[in-house]
Amino acid sequence: MADKLFIFDTTLRDGEQSPGASMTKDEKIRIAKQLERLKVDVIEAGFAASSMGDFEAIRAIAATVRDSTVCSLARANDKDIQRAADALAGSDNKRIHTFIATSPLHMEKKLRMTPDQVFEQARTAVRFARKFTDNVEFSPEDGSRSEFDFLCRVLEAVIAEGATTINIADTVGYAVPELYGQLVKKLRERVPNSDKAVWSVHCHNDLGMAVANSLAGVQIGGARQVECTINGLGERAGNTSLEEIVMAVKTRKDYYGLELGIDTTQIVPASKMVSQVTGFVVQPNKAVVGANAFAHASGIHQDGVLKARDTYEIMRAEDVGWATNKIVLGKLSGRNAFKQRLQELGVEFESETDVNAAFVRFKDLADKKAEIFDEDILSIVSDEAAAAHLQEYFRFVSLSQRSETGERPHAKIVISVDGKEVTGDCDGNGPVDATLNAIESQVASGAELILYSVNAITTGTQAQGEVTVRLSKSGRIVNGVGTDPDIVAASAKAYLAALNRLQSKTEKLNPQL
Amino acid sequence: MADKLFIFDTTLRDGEQSPGASMTKDEKIRIAKQLERLKVDVIEAGFAASSMGDFEAIRAIAATVRDSTVCSLARANDKDIQRAADALAGSDNKRIHTFIATSPLHMEKKLRMTPDQVFEQARTAVRFARKFTDNVEFSPEDGSRSEFDFLCRVLEAVIAEGATTINIADTVGYAVPELYGQLVKKLRERVPNSDKAVWSVHCHNDLGMAVANSLAGVQIGGARQVECTINGLGERAGNTSLEEIVMAVKTRKDYYGLELGIDTTQIVPASKMVSQVTGFVVQPNKAVVGANAFAHASGIHQDGVLKARDTYEIMRAEDVGWATNKIVLGKLSGRNAFKQRLQELGVEFESETDVNAAFVRFKDLADKKAEIFDEDILSIVSDEAAAAHLQEYFRFVSLSQRSETGERPHAKIVISVDGKEVTGDCDGNGPVDATLNAIESQVASGAELILYSVNAITTGTQAQGEVTVRLSKSGRIVNGVGTDPDIVAASAKAYLAALNRLQSKTEKLNPQL
Repeated sequence: MADKLFIFDTTLRDGEQSPGASMTKDEKIRIAKQLERLKVDVIEAGFAASSMGDFEAIRAIAATVRDSTVCSLARANDKDIQRAADALAGSDNKRIHTFIATSPLHMEKKLRMTPDQVFEQARTAVRFARKFTDNVEFSPEDGSRSEFDFLCRVLEAVIAEGATTINIADTVGYAVPELYGQLVKKLRERVPNSDKAVWSVHCHNDLGMAVANSLAGVQIGGARQVECTINGLGERAGNTSLEEIVMAVKTRKDYYGLELGIDTTQIVPASKMVSQVTGFVVQPNKAVVGANAFAHASGIHQDGVLKARDTYEIMRAEDVGWATNKIVLGKLSGRNAFKQRLQELGVEFESETDVNAAFVRFKDLADKKAEIFDEDILSIVSDEAAAAHLQEYFRFVSLSQRSETGERPHAKIVISVDGKEVTGDCDGNGPVDATLNAIESQVASGAELILYSVNAITTGTQAQGEVTVRLSKSGRIVNGVGTDPDIVAASAKAYLAALNRLQSKTEKLNPQL
Repeated sequence: MADKLFIFDTTLRDGEQSPGASMTKDEKIRIAKQLERLKVDVIEAGFAASSMGDFEAIRAIAATVRDSTVCSLARANDKDIQRAADALAGSDNKRIHTFIATSPLHMEKKLRMTPDQVFEQARTAVRFARKFTDNVEFSPEDGSRSEFDFLCRVLEAVIAEGATTINIADTVGYAVPELYGQLVKKLRERVPNSDKAVWSVHCHNDLGMAVANSLAGVQIGGARQVECTINGLGERAGNTSLEEIVMAVKTRKDYYGLELGIDTTQIVPASKMVSQVTGFVVQPNKAVVGANAFAHASGIHQDGVLKARDTYEIMRAEDVGWATNKIVLGKLSGRNAFKQRLQELGVEFESETDVNAAFVRFKDLADKKAEIFDEDILSIVSDEAAAAHLQEYFRFVSLSQRSETGERPHAKIVISVDGKEVTGDCDGNGPVDATLNAIESQVASGAELILYSVNAITTGTQAQGEVTVRLSKSGRIVNGVGTDPDIVAASAKAYLAALNRLQSKTEKLNPQL
């Protein structure tokens, strides 16, 4: 095999740490399956010891995904590593990713340990992890601010213990390409057994250079694994964008000379799925996956002399999975057609009951909307999965709303709270405000609405509205997503979905890598 | 003065070439004033010969902006340059930016000229431009694919004729940092009189590396001007983001060692203004200006040991102009308080009549919404400017809409078409669909809705909805933005705004730089 660059996706671990991006187990499984279709080499499915939810999600993904390696993060202690190993037990193709801080500041202030203690703990952790798998990754947390000789000593020791991947993180997004590339290079030169491990880069985008930093780590430093996320999801300005790394390496193969295992036609579907699940929009001028990424205004207005579109096109839209929306089903489509399309979209249901429930929703939608697109089907599935598996403490029953210029908008909503129907009846500044007021009149959640956005799922006025609301309460931030051809009803559903998430307590640890 | 990096903003020229990002003259003036507050060195205000609208906008900006250099693009011919000079006549601080293609493909296929003819035309153009100003920039279009010796010969000649800035563009976003930096370096080494000009970089973000490429052009190549746009606005994946360049150079001053003239506290206000005018959303995980750029989930959930937030913070939110929303005005605020706040926000009105009209809208909003934020005031101003100066062929009068679970949503709208009121009355899949159907029943525009999105302007349920619609008709793409506390009314206003833009014919040339 030629020189291969491994793609390690951490959408489900580091990406999920974004405030508001938390996902349910079922959402994580759906995304993991899409990452497998995308053929990423490693899926970091979560941090098993951080919460019961993470543990269960990793276990389910480990039991489902076959073609990609499934990985769990773990602090460098036996308990965390045991937890990761337990979560991954069902997988034949797993990795344990363990980390410990190696910078003076972190060792002293956070760990309250001496360098020698950290050194020993790193070795012991890798040795313990190797009992469960021969695929072990080690990350020195805050590595870029660690004392160089000490860092080399730790890395040499963990490689000797059997760590097969060594990951150098630019945690705060402070790096510049040349210096970061040189750091990885110097480490590889100085660590005597560095050739026994694959070196990895993990960059954040605070200064807009995560992709270039990662590729400098590869080109200058000799790293052969890039850690990244779909849409660059992640805390603050996010992680390195998977789609940009992949397309840069493909498009500039003349320069990088590296092979990738990725099926690039699955990039845009993956991007849409992550955006839909988390409610994090992708801006139109986002590279590769933005709505405008392949729209050439100048191309259209050129005087026609330049017939060769190649002149201005370095990538083809179809290569990354952009396709015009196709009408796939309609009012007359039967259960078999629906089920077949679900299979083609890679959606699997746990039971026939679930399929039936989704089909009922499909028929309901087809009554309102003449043309059903793949995106509509996925939104049904998304809603269905949410409805079926989350404890639906709050549930939408019916809504009536009206507004008229010069009068106060009004909404009357019926919702089910823990199985009991209640009715709220309120005014508001607009129909959405009135509807949310009507909900709050019954639930008094005390949550603050900190974000509200709507995107149409498909084009045209018949599109369903997909509403995202983000609520904050006592320092916790959750997103809720709701879809409906009626934007006001979609808003109510999104609000209730967010309330349901606030309801389910899942405190978890968020490591800084 | 220490070594200074010049910031050349092309939001109003290259940014505006994004499909759907076209702006009115008044919008351009507002943005130009904000760019002046941001203290950018050069504002490329447009391409004077491309359309009457561009010419008028440049003329108005040249008459208004004092502290930044105002620039117009011009092809390398007397007519274009004369047009640029005429548009800039009112400015004491102007630049003419002329360009011609130098690659074999473009010279042969597009220009149908020999290299010697191109060489002569470039010289003549710069000589002619120098008659109007001693501040002349030259760009070799498709420069990176030009024959190196020929390119050096052209650049030497135009510098000899008095070009004071030489701009090397990576038009298709194909560059990687190391190679692009080397290209600029080699050009500067080979062109004998290269020290007589400031060298400039202009990168596109198709592979996610525009910022790193630009900074490699600066660090390796010795360029001292970066061409960039607010929010990275621009065709396809956009141009280099101004905010990322500025904060990278500031934050890593230890590495770049360069001075900037920018007032960074004006970055976020500029970002919000450009987003609001164009309807191009900024994704939450966008560096510097994204809503999450400074939100630390991990920070919140840390165990409290790391008290020093500096540990994970390389920039401070307040340094780039993030401030918590402040309630600035309310129902009881008078005309003077409103006017004073406008002045503090840097908004100027042409006449007292305009101030009065805006104040009426303010009181109207304050009746519906208890707390008025700066963003609300800016949206009023934005609407007011649009209403006052665009020929409002289509105008919103009143709307009544209702939806109820189990029934077809219905809307009745009154709009004014060329001064005459008409009423549309329609059903739809949702209240927005019904409303747009009702409009179309009266106007039959033939336009296709290709994007619909809503963002709340401020947080909380009382927020106004800001709706963006994008319409496509016969290859032309326009955006319309509408705000209202009632999301359905905001949708109607946005749709009518887009129809008004389709109505105004402004074909223009979009050069490829």
